[in-house]
Amino acid sequence: MDAIGRKHWAIAEGYIPSQSSFSDRELISHETAYILNATERDAHVAITIYFADRDPVGPYRVTVPARRTLHLRFNDLEDPEPIPRDTDYASVFESDEYIVVQHTRMDSRHAEVALLSTMAFAAE
Amino acid sequence: MDAIGRKHWAIAEGYIPSQSSFSDRELISHETAYILNATERDAHVAITIYFADRDPVGPYRVTVPARRTLHLRFNDLEDPEPIPRDTDYASVFESDEYIVVQHTRMDSRHAEVALLSTMAFAAE
Amino acid sequence: MDAIGRKHWAIAEGYIPSQSSFSDRELISHETAYILNATERDAHVAITIYFADRDPVGPYRVTVPARRTLHLRFNDLEDPEPIPRDTDYASVFESDEYIVVQHTRMDSRHAEVALLSTMAFAAE
Amino acid sequence: MDAIGRKHWAIAEGYIPSQSSFSDRELISHETAYILNATERDAHVAITIYFADRDPVGPYRVTVPARRTLHLRFNDLEDPEPIPRDTDYASVFESDEYIVVQHTRMDSRHAEVALLSTMAFAAE
Repeated sequence: MDAIGRKHWAIAEGYIPSQSSFSDRELISHETAYILNATERDAHVAITIYFADRDPVGPYRVTVPARRTLHLRFNDLEDPEPIPRDTDYASVFESDEYIVVQHTRMDSRHAEVALLSTMAFAAE
Repeated sequence: MDAIGRKHWAIAEGYIPSQSSFSDRELISHETAYILNATERDAHVAITIYFADRDPVGPYRVTVPARRTLHLRFNDLEDPEPIPRDTDYASVFESDEYIVVQHTRMDSRHAEVALLSTMAFAAE
Repeated sequence: MDAIGRKHWAIAEGYIPSQSSFSDRELISHETAYILNATERDAHVAITIYFADRDPVGPYRVTVPARRTLHLRFNDLEDPEPIPRDTDYASVFESDEYIVVQHTRMDSRHAEVALLSTMAFAAE
Repeated sequence: MDAIGRKHWAIAEGYIPSQSSFSDRELISHETAYILNATERDAHVAITIYFADRDPVGPYRVTVPARRTLHLRFNDLEDPEPIPRDTDYASVFESDEYIVVQHTRMDSRHAEVALLSTMAFAAE
């Protein structure tokens, strides 16, 4: 059986609130891309971040080892520059191996945590 | 690599509560279409709104510049007419360039904010 | 342009809590299928409900008029029989016209309302 | 009409919090795969769990009877080993019949329950 996935993914939603009601890393407001690499080879992924009113930034480069999953927090991206808070953005993923990308936001601006998640859009 | 996306999208869910527990724009109950245009050309998007018991309204026209993302609040649509509150609706997007459309609702009728999000349905 | 959609959809998740913290119809715990018919002809939809431990029930029949959206609460289905509460189920939609189906659950067992939503799975 | 579904699915998101604010089984923090088998034959499903920093574990084997739905809690998987709590994971499903897979997490670390759900990614 061939490994599951696609090489090209997009997430149109993006917004990291600067505020959180918690200091615990698990409960700080954050956005995450869950990347599964079920293939037998390391996947080299280039991420481009799009904004409403300026040119895209990137690529951010991450490697997802063979037969591993990477839960990547956009909050943690630093190179070439951090993702600004309280700012609309979108992201595109290009990989040299098949991957599966899912997106989740945890919003803890209030003490009641809100979650959203959706599979990213996969190009043919 | 070709730009990611499709030209024809639909969101079957639509409902803007008239009530909010907050006056901050970020936390007012709202529905948003996140539109990513990763192409090199401006995308001209025509949106049609469907209702349960009357004819569709539209097109609402928005432009998403090349290599930009637009986080469009349905609450802000005014022309040809505002989206009624507390009313079921659905939406169809037609673009002249490839785009990616994701849908999110923030419901703040109660002090505890609820979020939902899903990728829109992409036609072939 | 051809109308957007597919004729065959499935929702694997299904569960209507019997408890709610509110008596307002909008805030009672419920599951909804949002059905958009953007075609020029009425869509006749047959819904089959699958269970964990007994034979499927159906078809439940609904009509979505041409160029209209129907927000169908599973709570309201009565014929051939109501959907049991506090019970796992799944649903399959077959339509004679192209439709788009999205699924949402509002869970108000606690005063803090939780929402989830996802596009249904569309068969080729 | 052919039965709806695919044979190969993936969920990139996975995380079972070890904490819950409730002891009721319904409200303990959990992750669930909703599996619908609308075919006329039993579906034998092999699940592989992927981690960030060690080799995959599996297969976990479940059978979804013909014309039934199975709401499978990852919390309940025991053989070959339980899914660790507070740990990132992902999952791949391989079935010998067509199935539909949807994923939901209930997070009840706080008294306010948060829900997320998304259709799994279906391979061609």
